[in-house]
Amino acid sequence: MDASAYWKERAPLVDAALEAALPDVGEAPARLHAAMRHLLFPGGKRLRPVLAMAGAEAVGGPPEHALPAAVAVELIHTYSLVHDDLPCMDDDDERRGIRTVHRAFDESTAVLAGDALQSAAFEALLTGCPELPLTPEQRLAAAREITRASGSLGLVGGQVDDLAFDPNRADVQSVESIHARKTAALIGASVTSGAILAGATGPVVENLRNYGLRVGAVFQISDDLLDADRGEECSLLRVYTPGQARARAEELLDEALGFIEGFGEAAQPLRALAVFALRRNQ
Amino acid sequence: MDASAYWKERAPLVDAALEAALPDVGEAPARLHAAMRHLLFPGGKRLRPVLAMAGAEAVGGPPEHALPAAVAVELIHTYSLVHDDLPCMDDDDERRGIRTVHRAFDESTAVLAGDALQSAAFEALLTGCPELPLTPEQRLAAAREITRASGSLGLVGGQVDDLAFDPNRADVQSVESIHARKTAALIGASVTSGAILAGATGPVVENLRNYGLRVGAVFQISDDLLDADRGEECSLLRVYTPGQARARAEELLDEALGFIEGFGEAAQPLRALAVFALRRNQ
Repeated sequence: MDASAYWKERAPLVDAALEAALPDVGEAPARLHAAMRHLLFPGGKRLRPVLAMAGAEAVGGPPEHALPAAVAVELIHTYSLVHDDLPCMDDDDERRGIRTVHRAFDESTAVLAGDALQSAAFEALLTGCPELPLTPEQRLAAAREITRASGSLGLVGGQVDDLAFDPNRADVQSVESIHARKTAALIGASVTSGAILAGATGPVVENLRNYGLRVGAVFQISDDLLDADRGEECSLLRVYTPGQARARAEELLDEALGFIEGFGEAAQPLRALAVFALRRNQ
Repeated sequence: MDASAYWKERAPLVDAALEAALPDVGEAPARLHAAMRHLLFPGGKRLRPVLAMAGAEAVGGPPEHALPAAVAVELIHTYSLVHDDLPCMDDDDERRGIRTVHRAFDESTAVLAGDALQSAAFEALLTGCPELPLTPEQRLAAAREITRASGSLGLVGGQVDDLAFDPNRADVQSVESIHARKTAALIGASVTSGAILAGATGPVVENLRNYGLRVGAVFQISDDLLDADRGEECSLLRVYTPGQARARAEELLDEALGFIEGFGEAAQPLRALAVFALRRNQ
């Protein structure tokens, strides 16, 4: 299976669902709604939504059933980028080749657009795509995955520790703990929430979580290797040579694949995406 | 019925549920968790949680059933205050007699504490108080009320328009539209989400929403009258005399009470709270 082909097939579904999840362009307050869309369209790789759909397929469900989760994780990812870019955090002027939200609009609009994106994420997950045969139990269980990954013990907590990170006191454990919460938690929840909307429960979900957390870690190591020249503060390259980092990523990839070994043919997309997470930098 | 007595009876239940909804003090990242608690304990009036419990009682349910909604609306209200106080918005140094979160901690911690409070709100609503006999349908329907009230068409949108408000172009409609979204929407959702967790559906919910939106408006007018000396930018006193504002509040109170006329004795707490919302400034 070719990860890029899978990606190209799924990404348009995600974009259409994201479009449907937000108020129309021009709806008041128009400036806020434009700011919410600024980083979202055309957006980035849609890694998290595509993983949500592949998670649904891995448990034998139609990938479309994962769309409310796919939208939610992309909106949460996007809100976190908008806030991370703020002057009081990373103070970035550009992202993905365009101006950051606080530069294209202003600082208060960026804070509020992020806030509204988070709210829209839960709205999409809990009420979006009403035509799908999803049970309230499934939506709640998927939401549990996503709230756990995105709050103070997940994404937000990882960002707090990232901002306070001291490269002079870096060790493998502190770097990996930050990446586990800031990046891998939401990637793991993308897979599990998508699978839950397709009917997964119990140990199946646990295996997918273990897969997803490792793929998230692999993805982050790839980022660290790609960004080696940028001198990121919290990078595995603070404590590992590039060779050691690559070896660690290979080890995590093997572990990830091990957790979905029993899923058969249906997990081919997940396998291809895991390999892609590692190879994209080579 | 005495609103203050009702309040004193219910507020400790709310505080205990809020405490249970957040990670323990000292849990890492400890500084983030301290920042999340800063404005929350002892907190403010707990108006929204108390209204959620009164909403549950109004439809014949035990007030405790409303606790997941009560916690959610208080956490969302609190996150919105933390972000509204930021330097890029109202730039306030103090609130409720203590330093604002960005002054007591720092700006990035305040942004992230607000983000985590919003996430915790949905977590509490969707998974909190698991011992209560709430159905997944009830939790989802309650969440729908709260996401609608808190996103870009509600609370966040109201704040955007409040920041852009030009007192020289104020008219009754623009002031009331901002207050409806920034204050009344979440107060309305407090009542409806609490009632939904106690079993309310359909036209009963609609009547409670209509009650809550008006009580929210009354509450805001009270605030405008209390803050008359502070010269708030977006205040009904920009377009009304104090006497006219009081008359408008009386009219809204009458309408609010009309919507719950058919609820009988069970709605006495809602009636007392509505009257309190108006009289507290006299």
